Amino acid sequence: MVNAPDRTRSSVGTATDMGLAIHTLAARLFPICRSITGNGVRDTLAILGQQIDMAVHEVPTGTPVFDWVVPPEWNIRDAYVKDGSGRKRIDLAKSNLHVVSYSNPIHRVMQLSELRSHIHTLPDQPDLIPYRTSYYSEQWGLCTSHNALLGLADGEYEVLIDAEKTDGHLTYGEYLHKGSTDRDVLFSAHICHPSLANDNCSGLALLTLLGKSMQSRKTRYNYRFLFAPGTIGALTWLARNEDKVARIDHGLVVSCVGDGGGPTYKRSRQGNAMIDRAMESVLCCGNRQAIMQDFSPYGYDERQYCSPGFNLPVGLFQRSGFGTFPEYHTSADNMALITPENLAFSYQMISEVIDIIETNWTPVNLFPKGEPQLGRRGLYASLGGDKSAVQTSMAFLWVLNLADGNYSLLDMSLRSRLPYADIFRAAQLLLEKGLLGGELPQA
Amino acid sequence: MVNAPDRTRSSVGTATDMGLAIHTLAARLFPICRSITGNGVRDTLAILGQQIDMAVHEVPTGTPVFDWVVPPEWNIRDAYVKDGSGRKRIDLAKSNLHVVSYSNPIHRVMQLSELRSHIHTLPDQPDLIPYRTSYYSEQWGLCTSHNALLGLADGEYEVLIDAEKTDGHLTYGEYLHKGSTDRDVLFSAHICHPSLANDNCSGLALLTLLGKSMQSRKTRYNYRFLFAPGTIGALTWLARNEDKVARIDHGLVVSCVGDGGGPTYKRSRQGNAMIDRAMESVLCCGNRQAIMQDFSPYGYDERQYCSPGFNLPVGLFQRSGFGTFPEYHTSADNMALITPENLAFSYQMISEVIDIIETNWTPVNLFPKGEPQLGRRGLYASLGGDKSAVQTSMAFLWVLNLADGNYSLLDMSLRSRLPYADIFRAAQLLLEKGLLGGELPQA
Amino acid sequence: MVNAPDRTRSSVGTATDMGLAIHTLAARLFPICRSITGNGVRDTLAILGQQIDMAVHEVPTGTPVFDWVVPPEWNIRDAYVKDGSGRKRIDLAKSNLHVVSYSNPIHRVMQLSELRSHIHTLPDQPDLIPYRTSYYSEQWGLCTSHNALLGLADGEYEVLIDAEKTDGHLTYGEYLHKGSTDRDVLFSAHICHPSLANDNCSGLALLTLLGKSMQSRKTRYNYRFLFAPGTIGALTWLARNEDKVARIDHGLVVSCVGDGGGPTYKRSRQGNAMIDRAMESVLCCGNRQAIMQDFSPYGYDERQYCSPGFNLPVGLFQRSGFGTFPEYHTSADNMALITPENLAFSYQMISEVIDIIETNWTPVNLFPKGEPQLGRRGLYASLGGDKSAVQTSMAFLWVLNLADGNYSLLDMSLRSRLPYADIFRAAQLLLEKGLLGGELPQA
Repeated sequence: MVNAPDRTRSSVGTATDMGLAIHTLAARLFPICRSITGNGVRDTLAILGQQIDMAVHEVPTGTPVFDWVVPPEWNIRDAYVKDGSGRKRIDLAKSNLHVVSYSNPIHRVMQLSELRSHIHTLPDQPDLIPYRTSYYSEQWGLCTSHNALLGLADGEYEVLIDAEKTDGHLTYGEYLHKGSTDRDVLFSAHICHPSLANDNCSGLALLTLLGKSMQSRKTRYNYRFLFAPGTIGALTWLARNEDKVARIDHGLVVSCVGDGGGPTYKRSRQGNAMIDRAMESVLCCGNRQAIMQDFSPYGYDERQYCSPGFNLPVGLFQRSGFGTFPEYHTSADNMALITPENLAFSYQMISEVIDIIETNWTPVNLFPKGEPQLGRRGLYASLGGDKSAVQTSMAFLWVLNLADGNYSLLDMSLRSRLPYADIFRAAQLLLEKGLLGGELPQA
Repeated sequence: MVNAPDRTRSSVGTATDMGLAIHTLAARLFPICRSITGNGVRDTLAILGQQIDMAVHEVPTGTPVFDWVVPPEWNIRDAYVKDGSGRKRIDLAKSNLHVVSYSNPIHRVMQLSELRSHIHTLPDQPDLIPYRTSYYSEQWGLCTSHNALLGLADGEYEVLIDAEKTDGHLTYGEYLHKGSTDRDVLFSAHICHPSLANDNCSGLALLTLLGKSMQSRKTRYNYRFLFAPGTIGALTWLARNEDKVARIDHGLVVSCVGDGGGPTYKRSRQGNAMIDRAMESVLCCGNRQAIMQDFSPYGYDERQYCSPGFNLPVGLFQRSGFGTFPEYHTSADNMALITPENLAFSYQMISEVIDIIETNWTPVNLFPKGEPQLGRRGLYASLGGDKSAVQTSMAFLWVLNLADGNYSLLDMSLRSRLPYADIFRAAQLLLEKGLLGGELPQA
Repeated sequence: MVNAPDRTRSSVGTATDMGLAIHTLAARLFPICRSITGNGVRDTLAILGQQIDMAVHEVPTGTPVFDWVVPPEWNIRDAYVKDGSGRKRIDLAKSNLHVVSYSNPIHRVMQLSELRSHIHTLPDQPDLIPYRTSYYSEQWGLCTSHNALLGLADGEYEVLIDAEKTDGHLTYGEYLHKGSTDRDVLFSAHICHPSLANDNCSGLALLTLLGKSMQSRKTRYNYRFLFAPGTIGALTWLARNEDKVARIDHGLVVSCVGDGGGPTYKRSRQGNAMIDRAMESVLCCGNRQAIMQDFSPYGYDERQYCSPGFNLPVGLFQRSGFGTFPEYHTSADNMALITPENLAFSYQMISEVIDIIETNWTPVNLFPKGEPQLGRRGLYASLGGDKSAVQTSMAFLWVLNLADGNYSLLDMSLRSRLPYADIFRAAQLLLEKGLLGGELPQA
């Protein structure tokens, strides 16, 4: 039996519960100082692993990954800038953003003039600390608010970055929900950003609890949840799973899902894959509105999944698009930016896409000549002439009209602009009444 | 010889005459109490039959029609609600809309509280009587203005609906204009609405006089004019003519053609059939503007013609679209809503579509290398440089440029956005001058 | 080796120099009284021939040209209207526009009432002299400002048009820049307009100096520069070069390139030819804006090149489109209307199209699985997280992502909306770094 899209899941009470749970989990991830390698990733996966049966993979430094090599492991213990009076003017303990991620270590006294060239600020947002990285290059650097920088008097400062780059591992986590077929859906979230709430504690927490909630659901597809550092993590996973890549029928990169913007969907490179069409149905049908973007090769790990050698049907789902909100890559991307309500709605939209992927089928109208008489089957308002009674019948009419064998339920949703769930329900009822034939997907 | 599109037909004098004639005929139809079966339909067909050689078909109650069955015949003699003083507060004699169409009979005294649940009103349009039907269900009901309902005091009322549903017939009329080929054009108007002028006395009258005027015209196509009750009438015709359906190359459902809105065209389910493209030329080229809609499965009898088992190239032509004007399905859809001018223009647009269907052909430029010299053939302004002289020559230039064998005149109209008649005239002149070749349609 | 698009050509200094040179050359052409035949064309070609090795062709009156015949040669010595006092009220010496081009001769005294019917003015632009022609018809006529006409008192006037139409020749010029292949590019400008600066001294001068500058450039294509009278000149060239027409892969008609409007591009009849797509890249990518128009059969000599018997991939490039600027075909289309800056920018845009035609190729990503590591090759900003550093890397990312063998560099520019030169440079660098393969065009 096919599993009907279950909209009770999205009822107010349940949605709020789920939103709160995602928000709470994101809050536990927020303080950790993540980078592309190191203990921050491990600590994060340990927390997520309390929710789902996470497989943690460790890939040694120096492992070749396509055109890349797994870099040294980076860990940091402390970082500060002390002024002449011994007062810490920049302090890692206050914000993980104060150190440039993957910065080289340093411990030296220097003049402000020298120090200044290693400090990154945002002159246009003078109260915020920027987020900066120096992967794959040998630099040291610190970040602080522009106003804090302006407050530093000339003179000597003690600069400490107590970090190390050593042979170690790249760490990523994977959770597999098994389905009844050998076809896969990929959900991917980057795990390399330090204390940034929307980008991407929100995505890590949402996907983890989505995976958890799916444990009670029989599905046709296998669902692979990947929590890996940006770029090098996705590449590493692809390199180690080349034999499985051809099994991926649909995929989403999930990021920035806790703010109130968008929703924003960036299509896969294919542009008209089923995931692209399913997202259009979820985000745009039923009078919903969204920002729909064509693929471009800048962004998150869809860059790797959609590289020409893979060209996977993987899109990017966000609320506000990266780079479009003022808090992006600053200390203002904190837990106050993301809300349970927004997280719940993001969760619901992804759940609706899963419903489409799992339940879509192509019905055939068994009474194709004219409309069958819906009224005597209780499927049609019995009092004619009323302008409003029509709405409830539209899904029946659309399904019957398009059920010529060329339209799946998803196709019908897109052509009618009705929500997929309405189309699905109408088809179920018509099927029960013996008006439709066709082969249903089996979970 | 091909019949040239004759725009004199649409000259002001003739158009006004035709508009008046349609309006006068519609006014004769307006008072009749039609429903999907019964004497109202017969009376209507009798009036139309005074204009054209109408074949009236009677199909017995109980006849299977695809998934449906021809229902009992409904006839009504009287209906009223009398208050305690014997005064008629609702009276069929005042408006046919006062009774729910196809209502069960009743004759009983009852309290207002009971009566009220059987009375339909429009609280938002409190002076108007709504139009309601109860086909295929066993109910009784009355309609009145909301203000009239509010004027009823508590107490007892005598309620009479002197109607009967008996074994009888479903009645429809058909008029066939014979052409020289065995291909058909279908024009269809529903005949089941009681005293509603725009929806659809206007369509019945327009098609009848269109059929009448075509008697003097030789055509290639057979033109089938169908006057049948909505849904069940169209289904009955389809069921009894399944062998002829494949001959229908083009078709229009015609309704609400007397008000000043739109024009509105809803495309056939095919979406790009010649009728869809011809209507686009008529309604949108030459700087005309119209509301063009994609097919949807709610509306008039295009629902049946465009069901997946038939999928006929039949569109819907209206002025204001159904449900979009405030008078729709109320007592305000009366003879004051429709005007001779609007009817004349609707008539003209349909006539122009017939011109396209009858006269479209694909010319071939016999001088395809460069432009032929139009000037020495009197087809080009002799004084160059004048910005405005250009307009008159554009049709010649478009026809010559596109006459590579891949473009019909209709295609040329759509690409150039020039009126089909201009393109047709230009092609005729170029043909006469020996510049074009190709096979012309023969009437 | 492929020739890289050389943007130094468009640097401010060089561009201004080129703009000045074009303007100076146009100014030398402006005073000449051109028509479709006669010494005006010869004098013009003589001036252009000082810059490039112009082949001048003389085709005798009476020569059949497709559906046309080469007309008599028209030459004019003088034209005036003298009032009773002997004062010249209209005088060819003051403006070549005062005589209708190709006017029959006349010398007679007549009343103002008779004269008036032969005088053309612009009542809505009462200070301007219109440009009018009477090719292929036997008329005489004069043009003047409407205010000047109003200033003529009743009475007798001496009218002289000292012109002659005699057996002679139609004259056109052609310049051929030889490339390394046998494929051709056609640039065409009409040479028949008298003292009109934008339409088309600008186009004649621009193409001449473009041809001159190409002498130092090795190209793959042959570039044919055609300077011929409108319509009859293009037809004559086509008739005498039918064997060469199939070699034309790309072409542009160039006109009105000195004002500040547009740029305006009218696509070829094919609509999606490489020239159409190259022009879209040049005019619309990199945040440029332009007026892009579909083909229509009215305009300049693209009418002939795009006639159905040839259907060549030839578009029309202009700044303001013909007929859209108030000075069009009036005495206000003088040297003050066109500027070196505008001419330089027009020149640059056409040069960029040549760059695309000459250098376009289809690279193949040799590291198609995931992104190759640009950072260690110095092709990527080393400090991540900065919102602005991204822009410079986009061309690399687009080229790598689309280099699956299905996209040329031009395709990549159009999909990414990045300038072709940026895409080209990125591909060159990626090629040098060994990341791309593919076959480059050889000049």
